[in-house]
Amino acid sequence: MSQPLRVGVAGLGTVGAALIAQVARQREQLAARCGRSIEIVAVCARSRVKNRGVDLKAMKWFSDPVALARAPDIDVFVELIGGAGDPAKSAVAAALDAGKSVVTANKALLAKHGVKLAALAEKRHVALNFEAAVGGAIPIVKTLREGLAGNAIDRIYGILNGTCNYILTRMEQDKMAFAECLKEAQRLGYAEADPTFDIEGHDTAQKLSILASLAFGSKVDQRAIYVEGISSIAPADLAAADELGYRVKLLGVAVKTPIGIEQRVHPTMVRKDSAIAQVMGVTNAVTVDADGINPLTLVGPGAGGTATASAVLSDIGDVARTQVGYTRLAHDRLQNSGKPEFCVRTEPFGRPTARLTSVRKAPMQRHAGGYYIRLQARDKPGTAATIAKRLAQQDISLESIVQRHAKDGSGPAPKIGSVPVILITYATSEDAVRKALAAVGRDRVISGRPQVIRIEKN
Amino acid sequence: MSQPLRVGVAGLGTVGAALIAQVARQREQLAARCGRSIEIVAVCARSRVKNRGVDLKAMKWFSDPVALARAPDIDVFVELIGGAGDPAKSAVAAALDAGKSVVTANKALLAKHGVKLAALAEKRHVALNFEAAVGGAIPIVKTLREGLAGNAIDRIYGILNGTCNYILTRMEQDKMAFAECLKEAQRLGYAEADPTFDIEGHDTAQKLSILASLAFGSKVDQRAIYVEGISSIAPADLAAADELGYRVKLLGVAVKTPIGIEQRVHPTMVRKDSAIAQVMGVTNAVTVDADGINPLTLVGPGAGGTATASAVLSDIGDVARTQVGYTRLAHDRLQNSGKPEFCVRTEPFGRPTARLTSVRKAPMQRHAGGYYIRLQARDKPGTAATIAKRLAQQDISLESIVQRHAKDGSGPAPKIGSVPVILITYATSEDAVRKALAAVGRDRVISGRPQVIRIEKN
Repeated sequence: MSQPLRVGVAGLGTVGAALIAQVARQREQLAARCGRSIEIVAVCARSRVKNRGVDLKAMKWFSDPVALARAPDIDVFVELIGGAGDPAKSAVAAALDAGKSVVTANKALLAKHGVKLAALAEKRHVALNFEAAVGGAIPIVKTLREGLAGNAIDRIYGILNGTCNYILTRMEQDKMAFAECLKEAQRLGYAEADPTFDIEGHDTAQKLSILASLAFGSKVDQRAIYVEGISSIAPADLAAADELGYRVKLLGVAVKTPIGIEQRVHPTMVRKDSAIAQVMGVTNAVTVDADGINPLTLVGPGAGGTATASAVLSDIGDVARTQVGYTRLAHDRLQNSGKPEFCVRTEPFGRPTARLTSVRKAPMQRHAGGYYIRLQARDKPGTAATIAKRLAQQDISLESIVQRHAKDGSGPAPKIGSVPVILITYATSEDAVRKALAAVGRDRVISGRPQVIRIEKN
Repeated sequence: MSQPLRVGVAGLGTVGAALIAQVARQREQLAARCGRSIEIVAVCARSRVKNRGVDLKAMKWFSDPVALARAPDIDVFVELIGGAGDPAKSAVAAALDAGKSVVTANKALLAKHGVKLAALAEKRHVALNFEAAVGGAIPIVKTLREGLAGNAIDRIYGILNGTCNYILTRMEQDKMAFAECLKEAQRLGYAEADPTFDIEGHDTAQKLSILASLAFGSKVDQRAIYVEGISSIAPADLAAADELGYRVKLLGVAVKTPIGIEQRVHPTMVRKDSAIAQVMGVTNAVTVDADGINPLTLVGPGAGGTATASAVLSDIGDVARTQVGYTRLAHDRLQNSGKPEFCVRTEPFGRPTARLTSVRKAPMQRHAGGYYIRLQARDKPGTAATIAKRLAQQDISLESIVQRHAKDGSGPAPKIGSVPVILITYATSEDAVRKALAAVGRDRVISGRPQVIRIEKN
């Protein structure tokens, strides 16, 4: 039997505790599947006295994650501290620099410093694995990095934030307002006390930046993403979507266009019969469109201690497995060489970092696609004609126009002298839509701001 | 740059041709993703003159697949011949024995000889990869072997045969009879001239045997599977399912039970709002229930040249990538050793073959679950009471009873003096259901054979 893989875990929140419990529970299976046992030999957290429901007695305690990262008696450093800055960043860098493979669930760190850390991992011939950083237990990182290695990817999009999907699901199913659903999500622990990061799309953007890099060989760069959250979505939009055969989902989308990779996060209309539209509640899902094959959709738990720990453990298993392959064949000949005993793929983003291409921020005014537009139109002669004219001036063709009065209380209270009008456009450019709506605004035929939701073809 | 990976391909049908085209098209990306170029250097097929739409000029031609498998100038042997017997079997064995990794899409071969071939791969420290054998482009083999390495799996089930799912989809959506839909599937090329292998569930069973082995560490063994096809499904069943909130799918199911791993293929009622119920047409899907995490569902193209080739190419990429990792670190020291230059995981079924457990055929009379039963009851006093009594004698509780007359032509023609009765039972044993229905038959209160469809909780 080969030597056990010695793991150090920094950060003992719900994921860390779930990981320790799972390694203990699956000891035998892990050894069978990886060819060697996996042992958590050292841990690091802020409080040593807190009861986490797992047995830490056999593990060496560190109070400094950087010291743990450098400890000579660990093979793999697992970073579950979180955050783009220190100590997570310095600990991960220290571990890689010391020739240890790193497993992390830290999307923020990767979205900000992913390229630099990947380059360091390559230099030291060690792994930097991060399946848990995107989509929880959904094996989307592995699928992009290995499963679709021979496919040109055209588009990848997904529901990457359970909080937002929970809120949109409740709004749709129970015809509740956004604020009310957010409160419910907070009560159930699905949303933070300060929910901004989730509901304004930033969490989705961090995850999307990682997926885009894996899919398109671009440098991971959160700043390249256009971001819009869900706080402006009204029950009236969900009701209209339903009538028109759509659902509204907060999607992260990265797509190849003639002017480069377009990365964007915003509420999106998706066809009700698509796989992604079926995804309800806190569940996550990712769809990949690749050359010549029908879309591939992966659906599963996107968060939670056990789901995240299961992805972390899969990453640890990958290190154990590749290392053992090496060990079995070459251990005898290499054991005195002083080089790390690893034989792993060393490209965290699937390609050498030197070959990753730069991306620029999606110029959304050049985004092309269909649009859903909800206007509160003044109920006077000539209004419809004015709106139609402004759209026509921008060469926007309409697939449908629905003028609906909210009868069931799901829409906004009808205003005297105003009628909700819902327009679905054929493919056009965002620039055209913006110009047309600005002109309609100047014409004073609508009240309030128009609601605009992009339609994602699927 | 490392040496190119030299690939020999045996079998140039739609998959082989698609593979050659894809390797040519993705040359650069593959090199970036795998750290070395992938070159198809030799091919083998029956006809040398047939036009396959791809350029074979640069490739060495073999007429004997075994000779290609043993050729000293290939690193990987790709078997796309098909069939459980020779020449596929002897060619794969010859390649493994010669220390070459093998990639195959051959489910029949694996279902029958998988354990023996895996043992040979282990002995020679080479890979035996078969992502394409199950679920086409869906990365389910990789997900089970690597992605869920640290999870105890409770159940895995899937739509693994596009022909059957296409037929059931058409039957449901267009209220067509089975025979009519089968003809349509044949016309579209979704079903073979002799459709038995697909529609009677044997194709699904071969694939399930592979998934069960990967999920539960059992020996792959097609004979351990209980198999029932879809030819007895009537439009009346699909209409009744719809009314009751279900859809009928042909599922392959492998599940941990107190008496061992139960493997079965049969038409199944699944809840309409489940992810698997949304899968329509020739699309495939697999759902995995693992410890402590919500189900993971993978949906995608289950067949077709490009989809299958993309899975084959992913397997080839895995060999290229692991080999290059080895090469970079240790090539200098090992190049003169005479050992194969591979550094790969050598457990095709995720665990050493010596540790794979034996399975026995699922004793279906002990299967526990809910049941859908459709009877043609004689319309005379006491019939309902008789049926109810026989069920009660076997301790079967009913969740619902529906007595429906086919009004819309979707059911069988109403017989004079007989009424269709649909029963949904709570969880019971198959033995109880069989005994109760045998008693009802002896009571002469029904005409024809009862239709029985198992309900899969999901």
